[in-house]
Amino acid sequence: MEEQKTILLAHGGGGRLMRDLIDRLIVPALGSPNGPLMDSAILDLPTGKIGFTTDSYVVQPLFFPGGDIGKLAVCGTVNDLAVAGTRPIALSMGLIIEEGLAVEDLKKILSSAAQTAAQAGVRIITGDTKVVEKGAADGLFINTAGIGIQIENAQIGFERIRPGDRILLNGTLGDHGMTIMSKRRDISFDSPMTSDCACLNGLIETLLAECGTEIKFMRDPTRGGLAATLNEIAQEAGAAVEIGEKKLPINPAVRGAAEMLGFDLLHTANEGKVVVVVSEAAAQKALRVCTAHPLGGQGALIGTITAADGRPLVELLTQIGGRRIVQMPYGRDLPRIC
Amino acid sequence: MEEQKTILLAHGGGGRLMRDLIDRLIVPALGSPNGPLMDSAILDLPTGKIGFTTDSYVVQPLFFPGGDIGKLAVCGTVNDLAVAGTRPIALSMGLIIEEGLAVEDLKKILSSAAQTAAQAGVRIITGDTKVVEKGAADGLFINTAGIGIQIENAQIGFERIRPGDRILLNGTLGDHGMTIMSKRRDISFDSPMTSDCACLNGLIETLLAECGTEIKFMRDPTRGGLAATLNEIAQEAGAAVEIGEKKLPINPAVRGAAEMLGFDLLHTANEGKVVVVVSEAAAQKALRVCTAHPLGGQGALIGTITAADGRPLVELLTQIGGRRIVQMPYGRDLPRIC
Repeated sequence: MEEQKTILLAHGGGGRLMRDLIDRLIVPALGSPNGPLMDSAILDLPTGKIGFTTDSYVVQPLFFPGGDIGKLAVCGTVNDLAVAGTRPIALSMGLIIEEGLAVEDLKKILSSAAQTAAQAGVRIITGDTKVVEKGAADGLFINTAGIGIQIENAQIGFERIRPGDRILLNGTLGDHGMTIMSKRRDISFDSPMTSDCACLNGLIETLLAECGTEIKFMRDPTRGGLAATLNEIAQEAGAAVEIGEKKLPINPAVRGAAEMLGFDLLHTANEGKVVVVVSEAAAQKALRVCTAHPLGGQGALIGTITAADGRPLVELLTQIGGRRIVQMPYGRDLPRIC
Repeated sequence: MEEQKTILLAHGGGGRLMRDLIDRLIVPALGSPNGPLMDSAILDLPTGKIGFTTDSYVVQPLFFPGGDIGKLAVCGTVNDLAVAGTRPIALSMGLIIEEGLAVEDLKKILSSAAQTAAQAGVRIITGDTKVVEKGAADGLFINTAGIGIQIENAQIGFERIRPGDRILLNGTLGDHGMTIMSKRRDISFDSPMTSDCACLNGLIETLLAECGTEIKFMRDPTRGGLAATLNEIAQEAGAAVEIGEKKLPINPAVRGAAEMLGFDLLHTANEGKVVVVVSEAAAQKALRVCTAHPLGGQGALIGTITAADGRPLVELLTQIGGRRIVQMPYGRDLPRIC
């Protein structure tokens, strides 16, 4: 490894070079305090329900303001577990590396993943490394899968959603998507944008500890943005959802960029946001808990479940008092956003 | 979906097209009997230890005699869990699809994965789909992660290996690697070869049920082949391992192809083989159990742990009575084998 500045195909061959890569770079960078990364790890769990999830990360570029693919791969999977009402405890990490990737870049990405995991209180305990020839992948793809333990007072399910429930969002919309977008097209704005990429398990656990079963449902609005998440809620709960355009927290720089480039921030991906459906009774409390948290300072109650009569509908009350239907995005959002 | 014959970038965008792909193709093909594939799945587990593992599959070509990338992605992760002494129960599946992949091919691959999982008694319970633009991946990459429950009488660990222990292999060497190789170079031989790709959890559970803690260690010799597995055992256990060339089960067609093309079958990947270290006392019993199983008919005791004095060594007794050191492969094995 010492002499190699880029990843070779032979680093994925199962032999000495691969052992070297794992022992000298990957394990030290991920730095599990519990010994080496195993092909298979054994976890000692209490009885009960666990959450299990997976996501692959193909973001382009690999490095962006506010994060990189390593941080994203940890946050995304941690957040999927957290919104399901589980406490993330362990992650796996599968790397698909394109021959020629700079070893220095790989190191940075793995360190970033390790640091993010440590801050979130999860361990990366098992992994896999594949190398494909130049042109057969695009730098680096990462898959993380994760295991979480169900939080005792969490009851998360579409079927618990009722008319009157309020919709809480923990901050500004579209920061991740617009940051990737401007970075990719190499457009710079006066006010630089930063991805919101963050692990939300701390915020979510605090919300559950304070509001318990008053929290009915949670989802992180990533690909497809808030529009996709709200439409999924409306569809699965057979509910009508109304949100107020004025209530949506939006970073002015992001708004400006979206307007200039013709993006709808309702459809733009977030990587540090959670949509929470909370009972009317607990809504103000949930908002207070959210805004007191470092990742929820700009949180707001953005809408209401207005009906649950089996007819799915998402409507936006516009700034000027009109109404428009918020549709499920068709699928033409920016690719490689996460 | 009905009209689309190939996967579009928009199928990965998080919107309606992606929902369609998941609802109309992926979920029916994987056909979980327990309802829809969730972003996050909840599993109800008994108390105790679980195994957790991951692997990405980048095999090229996607279809080969004896299997395809879908079957491989299930078998590989099932086998990693099984050799760790756990009973595989649930898998995740992350797809990274190159724009332009034939929908028909994706369907075949997912059906194959589902059928393999059903036969092995595991469920695919959570998944993720990403689409990258043409040229940014090579058809399809699949990551599977898996969870297994520790089998009660399994005690698997390098530290249990002792001099006198025997080495059992459940069948012929190199079938997977040589099959991929000949398929990729489009070489056909008189006797066609077939990948040994198979889920070994049934065989392994039977061995553990019959031989219990007499089984000291297991590993599937995939990338890097038998040479890598034995060298890892020697290294980690500080042991000397001796195997007999005459005792190695090898398919004649595979031997012929390897000789013609200059491959060393000790370094060639297998996908349906397990190396078992078993006590001398239980070795014959383990062999009988193995050869009575459909996946172990050509099983053989191929070698012995001759010392465990902290000096790692792997030696081959050759056909003509000589000795040669079996080295850890350096890393130049065929890429994209799994």
